[in-house]
Amino acid sequence: MSETETSAGWLTREQLRDARERLPIVYVSVVPVRVDERGVVTTIGLLLRASSEGTINRELVSGRVLYHERIRDSLIRHVEKDLGPLSMPRIPLSPQPFTVAEYFPTPGVTPFHDPRQHAVSLAYVVPVEGDCAPQQDALEFSWFSPDEVREPTVLAELANGQSALLLQALAHLAV
Amino acid sequence: MSETETSAGWLTREQLRDARERLPIVYVSVVPVRVDERGVVTTIGLLLRASSEGTINRELVSGRVLYHERIRDSLIRHVEKDLGPLSMPRIPLSPQPFTVAEYFPTPGVTPFHDPRQHAVSLAYVVPVEGDCAPQQDALEFSWFSPDEVREPTVLAELANGQSALLLQALAHLAV
Amino acid sequence: MSETETSAGWLTREQLRDARERLPIVYVSVVPVRVDERGVVTTIGLLLRASSEGTINRELVSGRVLYHERIRDSLIRHVEKDLGPLSMPRIPLSPQPFTVAEYFPTPGVTPFHDPRQHAVSLAYVVPVEGDCAPQQDALEFSWFSPDEVREPTVLAELANGQSALLLQALAHLAV
Amino acid sequence: MSETETSAGWLTREQLRDARERLPIVYVSVVPVRVDERGVVTTIGLLLRASSEGTINRELVSGRVLYHERIRDSLIRHVEKDLGPLSMPRIPLSPQPFTVAEYFPTPGVTPFHDPRQHAVSLAYVVPVEGDCAPQQDALEFSWFSPDEVREPTVLAELANGQSALLLQALAHLAV
Repeated sequence: MSETETSAGWLTREQLRDARERLPIVYVSVVPVRVDERGVVTTIGLLLRASSEGTINRELVSGRVLYHERIRDSLIRHVEKDLGPLSMPRIPLSPQPFTVAEYFPTPGVTPFHDPRQHAVSLAYVVPVEGDCAPQQDALEFSWFSPDEVREPTVLAELANGQSALLLQALAHLAV
Repeated sequence: MSETETSAGWLTREQLRDARERLPIVYVSVVPVRVDERGVVTTIGLLLRASSEGTINRELVSGRVLYHERIRDSLIRHVEKDLGPLSMPRIPLSPQPFTVAEYFPTPGVTPFHDPRQHAVSLAYVVPVEGDCAPQQDALEFSWFSPDEVREPTVLAELANGQSALLLQALAHLAV
Repeated sequence: MSETETSAGWLTREQLRDARERLPIVYVSVVPVRVDERGVVTTIGLLLRASSEGTINRELVSGRVLYHERIRDSLIRHVEKDLGPLSMPRIPLSPQPFTVAEYFPTPGVTPFHDPRQHAVSLAYVVPVEGDCAPQQDALEFSWFSPDEVREPTVLAELANGQSALLLQALAHLAV
Repeated sequence: MSETETSAGWLTREQLRDARERLPIVYVSVVPVRVDERGVVTTIGLLLRASSEGTINRELVSGRVLYHERIRDSLIRHVEKDLGPLSMPRIPLSPQPFTVAEYFPTPGVTPFHDPRQHAVSLAYVVPVEGDCAPQQDALEFSWFSPDEVREPTVLAELANGQSALLLQALAHLAV
């Protein structure tokens, strides 16, 4: 999970670091998909990013919900931040996420791990209808068929338990 | 619930009547909506139809799932049958319905009642993006804001418990 | 999926066979589980049964919803029929299934296949708190941990796509 | 929403107040229910509490998720804190909430309002099987049938939009 909106969150970098040691942080996770006219998910999109530890990982779109920000606005912001202003996300109608991923700073409590913080991430599948391009520090954004994305080699490129979240999304979509 | 696709179901009218006295019938119910670019439901669409008993009722889109028909294909077929071929429904990605309405031939078993049959109806919210017009025997198709559609006078125009289903959809959508 | 309640369905065996060639049949699928006091699923139960073709398969609990039968009553009936009258199922509060499995008589339309019929199966996870024992024609009923049940050798013993349904349940449960 | 676990949250009262002005806070909301053996919700429980402004309100069980606390452990803690150590909550198997309520410090952004903070509350229906008694500062804990709890006089006693959340729960439960 990348975190670049520190300043917009009305927190100094230091204040955010302090809060992260004391409070669970609200996140959204997005599985970006392309769908056909019958609503069938045809491809799933993953970012490729170099982590601060120097490894290269695939990633879902995700990020922090800001103070006084609606969840649906946070979904739009993070999709457009990661996939570009022309990505045209179709935001879910209902606030009900398909799951909630609990990222713990301690590995092993759940399948999800985030060394920086305890994050409670509301997960949604979001069709994107426009042009998607990797933004900022992302190296690449690629589409995979459901079968391709389930390949062990692809799943292994997702860090911090995001492969579990992706498999949960595929199960929810029944693809 | 209207039922006009008897012939397409590879059943004579008589065979369908017989089956309806002996088996629960698989249905889909659709709450057609318009949404804004943030995914917020702005209006809900209801059909106006004269029933066979001579009353005039508001109705959701609904109908029978045919033999060898996928649920998503049934959703497309019923929306296009009732709202026209240009209605452009956006079919849900997941097969999970927001609820299941059990219509019983005996009133009072559930909020849902269908004198003709025991129907098990999978209910979905379906955004329509195109032009909608009442088809066949429908008198009218009208859009209501969430507040308007909750008016007791509007809810009272929905027969057979469909007002309960509509309220469940609004609750699911949190509007 | 076993089918033994023909007589109780107010259909002769012949009438049911006829209906199955013409109408989708309403089913329920149950993933029986044991849970701990924190609501965490600890084990998943699978039946072992000899099929009519002479193969031996693992199976979820499932069966037909009868005419004029509520879904929740059908869930109780099928769990007690397959796991015994002392199994004490805790029926879900909401009618919303975690998924809907569409079994087609033609293989390959969906992951789910039932040579006898087109079945639309509403799938629920059902904790059982009492004593479970295989009934009737079942050879065995066994509990598996989430990790054990995901073993390819166990998944391969589930026929007709039930392994896909089981994996969807595990994803929904986040175990 | 009451907030009494400040000290357990590894935050001084001042630090928590600061965080609340800068970050959305993770909450859980619980609709406590009694169910019959068929899984039908028979009654819904509401707390009666005097607010700091001197009004007397009905309330759902709710509270903050602590740093390094699992959602399911937070659900247990808040139910036992509000309904007593013998209340025996049956925690949901899946992390998927039936809805997410976004409480804003500014009234009118959503139906939910919390003057103290921006809270993102994951909402669950939780059957309680044991003895429930109001704890701490609560005046009363009472059971209502679904019809009783929908009475305008009862709904009016719920503050900060919790009546909307309760109605969403009833819709999800189809009672």
